[in-house]
Amino acid sequence: MSVKIYVNQIAEKAKKASADIALASSETKNKVLAIAARGMRANKNQILAANKKDLTYGEKAGLSKAMMDRLALNANRIEDIAASIEDVIRLKDPIGRIIDEWKRPNGLVIQKVAVPLGVIVIIYEARPNVTAECASLCIKSGNSVILRGGREAFHSNQAIASVFQNALKACYLPKDSVILVDTPDRQVIDEIVKLGDRVNLVIPRGGEALIRRVTEKSRVPVIKHYKGICHIFVDDSANLDMAEKIVVNAKVQRPGVCNAMETLLVHRSIASKFLPKIGRVLKSKGCELRGDATVRKFIPNAKKAIEKDWYTEYLDLILSVRVVKDIHEAINHIQKYGSAHTDSIVTQNKKSAEEFVKEVDSSSVMVNASTRFADGNQYGLGAEIGISTDKVHARGPMGIEGLTSYKYVVRGKGQVRD
Amino acid sequence: MSVKIYVNQIAEKAKKASADIALASSETKNKVLAIAARGMRANKNQILAANKKDLTYGEKAGLSKAMMDRLALNANRIEDIAASIEDVIRLKDPIGRIIDEWKRPNGLVIQKVAVPLGVIVIIYEARPNVTAECASLCIKSGNSVILRGGREAFHSNQAIASVFQNALKACYLPKDSVILVDTPDRQVIDEIVKLGDRVNLVIPRGGEALIRRVTEKSRVPVIKHYKGICHIFVDDSANLDMAEKIVVNAKVQRPGVCNAMETLLVHRSIASKFLPKIGRVLKSKGCELRGDATVRKFIPNAKKAIEKDWYTEYLDLILSVRVVKDIHEAINHIQKYGSAHTDSIVTQNKKSAEEFVKEVDSSSVMVNASTRFADGNQYGLGAEIGISTDKVHARGPMGIEGLTSYKYVVRGKGQVRD
Repeated sequence: MSVKIYVNQIAEKAKKASADIALASSETKNKVLAIAARGMRANKNQILAANKKDLTYGEKAGLSKAMMDRLALNANRIEDIAASIEDVIRLKDPIGRIIDEWKRPNGLVIQKVAVPLGVIVIIYEARPNVTAECASLCIKSGNSVILRGGREAFHSNQAIASVFQNALKACYLPKDSVILVDTPDRQVIDEIVKLGDRVNLVIPRGGEALIRRVTEKSRVPVIKHYKGICHIFVDDSANLDMAEKIVVNAKVQRPGVCNAMETLLVHRSIASKFLPKIGRVLKSKGCELRGDATVRKFIPNAKKAIEKDWYTEYLDLILSVRVVKDIHEAINHIQKYGSAHTDSIVTQNKKSAEEFVKEVDSSSVMVNASTRFADGNQYGLGAEIGISTDKVHARGPMGIEGLTSYKYVVRGKGQVRD
Repeated sequence: MSVKIYVNQIAEKAKKASADIALASSETKNKVLAIAARGMRANKNQILAANKKDLTYGEKAGLSKAMMDRLALNANRIEDIAASIEDVIRLKDPIGRIIDEWKRPNGLVIQKVAVPLGVIVIIYEARPNVTAECASLCIKSGNSVILRGGREAFHSNQAIASVFQNALKACYLPKDSVILVDTPDRQVIDEIVKLGDRVNLVIPRGGEALIRRVTEKSRVPVIKHYKGICHIFVDDSANLDMAEKIVVNAKVQRPGVCNAMETLLVHRSIASKFLPKIGRVLKSKGCELRGDATVRKFIPNAKKAIEKDWYTEYLDLILSVRVVKDIHEAINHIQKYGSAHTDSIVTQNKKSAEEFVKEVDSSSVMVNASTRFADGNQYGLGAEIGISTDKVHARGPMGIEGLTSYKYVVRGKGQVRD
């Protein structure tokens, strides 16, 4: 069977299933999730055996240690997966919510009511727990989901997805509400994003190359962020102890993620005081610094930053540092080089804080907080299906509400238009 | 200059201007609109002279009478344009609104704050008043707009757009917040929808061919509806006088618009009573009927409906009519043949009403009301920038809020992540 025919078939199945899952009650959807959580525990051995196959394959393929670690499951990680499914049971059902309601002078009552999107495609990389996360959130929000995980995790993903499919069947819902793409052929991605009539949203979670490939060819809306070039600007009025704590946390606590800081901007009037200290601290944490001329004056072992550095998402213990003459230069730098993900100001000056908040056009803008908080769970959204730097539909960390749309419901008593 | 270079230049200008207009206060934006409204009146003669050029061109080009009427301006229509700009002044500024706000256990205060989308491209056809409508709504919502009107209205659009540009300049805002594409070359559309980094949203307002052309090539989100195949289902429990009034209004009051009814579905148990009467009434209004076998039994002069009719948006005094055995068959028909625009049930049965509302997956679902109400002004949105049958971003009639996004603003006191 050609990839094109296969993709059309699964999209058709997912679309058909979406009409049923959309109408399922909260009770039924929660029952599916409860059965799936129990199923994870009951099928632990099968899941681990499937994972073993992936690990063997990964070893042969020479995956990096980090990749192998992301891929590996064990009894604890399976328990975590089961528990995270149970977390989704506790989330409020986003469907059927009356978002707004009003009455017109002619007596028509108008409601905006939350409905599922329909069919969602999620494309992701190695970690098999993402399969369970995405399946649970899509079931809870009444959507069908087509999951396209990395080929490294194929058997693990299959074992996890089949637990959800069995749970759906046990509740008389179509198992095609959760479909796992069963071929590693990359052409699947190119074909699936063309199905504008059967797919409502594509969420690529992965590296920039994957996301660009999806976006280039897509005729379906894509929720995404290409990169996270997050900035912290230390203003002249900053509490420098606070600034140090925030800068170290944003860079060092987990450098490989999209909300880690990549560029530090420092107001020139505190440069001589702040830079030598932060230089020493970051150095002691194993962090390489790349700075402009002023920075290198105060941090002698910093390397020279070149233009490309300001555009770079290191995802590593490397930080570019620049001294700016004022808040305007800081904001201009962020607008020019940033990726509209998350940017933070450290300041005790309320006016500067509000200026920064208003003028920085990023999906998360922070005052006196670490960029590492830009995360659905940290924001209290209950879950995170992705982070968006787009301006249409969802922006910033996207929770389960990002998987919904709405319809207008209009109730009358025979009104007609003049 | 090549079209590609030209399009890149105007997009660059619009993007640059968007940073300024985004930060303009409500007062300033309203002042721009007040000056523009006055400018329409003051420049009446120039606008009419420009319109005269278009009308002369239109006559030579053999435009239809309907097209010529849409194109024509006169003193009253210019006054209407000025008044509609003043209506936008009275709309609430959608920018800066705190959509939601909460505090996390660690003390972080999180806000979702409404922001402009950035650069909006609107592609439309003959009516020059659309130029003023779109420019006012985009200015009020802090967006830059690139307007691409029909070539028939080129001189009129230019005269109207320049009134807005002068008003922007008078308020020290960049005139490039409103850019009118000044070439009729259709390649402009193909190029402009590729500029994903400088354009945030495209709204095509026009025929299906135009919308498909935009969607096929776009790498920018598109808000659209292809067609409006609106249905009315007359249930067995309907008040038949009410049904008649609604059906006639939905079909006859203005057949050429997207929220007019195209297909009437009638419950079989009332077919013998309802069809002969509605057949006579519609006939007397000059409406052609196309029906299935049962319909033709009760309305002898109805033509035979073929499969294609159920998919057709007539935009004319033609109606396809089908008898269904129950509400489920009606809903299935709507899901299969409909365009997810607007569908209405006429019923006195609460259970049927709720079933219809829940199961029909259209952007507007109505009970006992004419489909003609699916309109931003009729819903009380204050204005309408378009109607969307998509599920992402805006759905149904889209008011000024559809021109906004949001950002997360996070305020802390030095919090870092564990």
